[in-house]
This record gives sequence, structure tokens and C-alpha cells, in this order.
Amino acid sequence: MTGRLYGLGIGPGDPELLTLKALRLLQAAPVIAYPAPEDGDSLARAIVAPHLPGGQTEIAIRMPMVAARFPAQEVYDWAAGEIGAHLEAGRDVAALCEGDPFFYGSFMYLFGRVAETHAVEVVPGVSSLTACAAVLGAPLAARNDVLTVIPAPLDEQALAERLRGVEAAAVIKVGRHLQKVRRVLARLGLSDRARYVERATMTQQRILPLDSLEEEGAPYFSMILIHRRGEAWT
Amino acid sequence: MTGRLYGLGIGPGDPELLTLKALRLLQAAPVIAYPAPEDGDSLARAIVAPHLPGGQTEIAIRMPMVAARFPAQEVYDWAAGEIGAHLEAGRDVAALCEGDPFFYGSFMYLFGRVAETHAVEVVPGVSSLTACAAVLGAPLAARNDVLTVIPAPLDEQALAERLRGVEAAAVIKVGRHLQKVRRVLARLGLSDRARYVERATMTQQRILPLDSLEEEGAPYFSMILIHRRGEAWT
Repeated sequence: MTGRLYGLGIGPGDPELLTLKALRLLQAAPVIAYPAPEDGDSLARAIVAPHLPGGQTEIAIRMPMVAARFPAQEVYDWAAGEIGAHLEAGRDVAALCEGDPFFYGSFMYLFGRVAETHAVEVVPGVSSLTACAAVLGAPLAARNDVLTVIPAPLDEQALAERLRGVEAAAVIKVGRHLQKVRRVLARLGLSDRARYVERATMTQQRILPLDSLEEEGAPYFSMILIHRRGEAWT
Repeated sequence: MTGRLYGLGIGPGDPELLTLKALRLLQAAPVIAYPAPEDGDSLARAIVAPHLPGGQTEIAIRMPMVAARFPAQEVYDWAAGEIGAHLEAGRDVAALCEGDPFFYGSFMYLFGRVAETHAVEVVPGVSSLTACAAVLGAPLAARNDVLTVIPAPLDEQALAERLRGVEAAAVIKVGRHLQKVRRVLARLGLSDRARYVERATMTQQRILPLDSLEEEGAPYFSMILIHRRGEAWT
């Protein structure tokens, strides 16, 4: 009997936004795995910390600061090997995924390495996308709106092409791309429709109109929501 | 002391995909409100039924079968009045929302009527979008993919314009628009990239390649996911 890998969506940050299913599987797993920085604490582990029963084997998947493609691949190869060894020994492994595992999550790199040879189950979670709309108090999309999710690392021209003509949009992974996104939104006349949300549902949450944000950079866990009609914001 | 309206995301269908926060607020509320058909049972109420403590006042928001715009507005006016009366009397009300309240949910109609005069808090939930990807076992979007969410009721030309050139897309609210969506996907050469998911995470869940679906219509709770690169499906 080999074990099963669970990709657990643990939600956007508030430990109470874990699902009952994720909680049950988290507490039953003899082994947990989670992403972590090269040094320091894992955000994913911190989110579930209030729920951990103690006594679990932990695999911290530590990503080098300069996350070039090849070192990252080596880290995931290593992590898949560690996880695979536990599965072979009959132990289930719960991989913690901030937000939802399949919404732009790094879980896909583990999934791609493990799913061909072992049983994997993905438990969906509350994504940052809907969490940001909830804390803003404004519908993300409604009726027959088309909703476009756009990663900020795209180049300036691609961002402009994707944002031109959107009805509702979320620009994700803002981080160091903040100024570029601002320029594009200004050029398209969308700045006054844009709201900025940082660390939604966490204790350090910040919400403000994009025009009021004074910083030139943003954390990775930030998002800009835009609704063209505007009435969705009222 | 007036009460507070909670818009509770209760997830895509599996009662275990409720969050801990939604469970707590659901069980503490003296009044619950939920959408329901003109006759018969409410799906939202069925999802939370295993968790109900008993003894709560219930407001079924029953929508006429022919959901023209004006009758629907009257129903929401009535529901907002009922809810408002409980809030005025100091009773909290938990409004149950399938999936997430602000992801194409009908909660926006209550929110628009109640939020100007009363405290409203939205609790995000697991959306059908990420639930469908989880049960398919395939990332919804990854890396710098642009993800487009497209409501199937759009007309054929608008659907084609929105689907042309997408990297990753979810066509939602498929229902009686199935054949129209199929024609558009076929014309764009995307049919073999399209997967069909019906009632994700519910006991009657169905998953199949769109090309293998023999019916000419689909239930409202169905979605078509498309990924152009295809490798996200492997």
C-alpha cells in the first residue's frame, strides 16, 4: 500500500479560511510538505500552524533567493524524491498550497513529477482572487462580464494588449512590476478604476485605491482589481 | 445594536469544502437566507444541511422559473426587506452563496440592496472555477498564463472574439448554451483542448472531454475548461 499525495489548498492567509476537508487531511497526514524561502519561515506553514497536531514529519521546500529556472527545477526534483520515498513507504503526504493548488500555484511542479507514478488528490481552496474581492467589498465579476486574470510579469506591451477592453480584470503577482502596471493602466485610462489589495485576509492586509498607493514596489502577495463599469465598486 | 449580514461562500458542492469561518458564522446566525427554485429544494441549503444546528429562522429566496429581469428584481427587493427587518431587530443573517459570493454570484443583488444601510461582511469560498480544475487534475493556469473567464450566455460572435487567442479559459454557465459554445470552439480549433465538468465535487459529478459529451444541453452547474498549450492537461 503506497501513500497518497494531497495538494491542499489552504486559502489566502486567514487560518479560518481553511476548508473542513483540508483540515481533516492536514491533521491525518503523517508527513507535510510546504514551500519556504531559502532562509526563514514558511508562510504556508504559518497559515496552518494553529491547526497542526504535532509529531508530523515536515519537508520544507526551500527555494533559492535567485529563483532561476534550473535551480528551481532541481529543488522540485529533490522535493518530489523526498515525497516519493514517503509515498513508497505507505505514508500519505499533505502538500500545503497557499490559496488554491491549481490557480497559479507552484504545486503544479510537484504534481507534474509525482502524478504519473503515485495517487495524487487536489483539494481546492479559497483563492486570493475571490479573497481580494471579498475584502474590497465589491463583486469580482457579475452577470455576463468577462473576467481576465493577468500576471504582472508580462511585458508592458502584452499587459496593454490584455488590459485594453477588459470588463473586469485582476492583475496578479504585482510585486516589483507595480510601476509598469501603473503606467499601462494610466495609458488605458483605467487608473481610477483600479483598487490595490495587499495580503488579503491576513493581519497585515492593506486595501486602497491604486492612485493612493505611494510605494514604488509591492509584495508578491498583492493584486490589482479593475472593473470598467465601475458600478461594481459601489 | 443592529445585526450584520454575512455573505457566506459555501463552496462548490461538497459539504466538506466549507471553510471553518463559514461554518462558524453559519452555526451562530439566528437567521439564514438562501436562493431556491420556485418549487422544490435549495441546492445551497442542501450543501450546508449536514452542518445546520437546527432552530434557525430560514428565508428561502425563491426565483420564478422564467427569470425575467423585473420579477427577479422584485424577489430581491422582497428578500432585502425580510433580511433588513431581522438586521434592524439585532439578528445576524447568514446568506448562503454557492461557490464564492462575489464570483458571478447572485449575492451581489442582496449586497447592493443591504450594504448602504447595514453592516455586510463577505466570506470568500471555494469557487467552481478552482473546484473544476481540482477534479480534472489539471492546473487551471500557471506561470504567466492569462486566464479568461467567459460566460456562455454571450452571443456567438462575442464568444468567438473572447476565445480567440486565449491561453487558458473557463466557459461558465454553460447550460442551454452548450451547442453554441461547441460551434465556436470547433471553429477556433479548440475542441480537442476542451474538457467538460458537471457538478464538480458533488456526488453526481461528471468529467469528460467535450468531444465525448453526447447531450445537446447541460445543467447550469457545468463548465468547460480550455488550455491552449495542452501540456497543462498532462
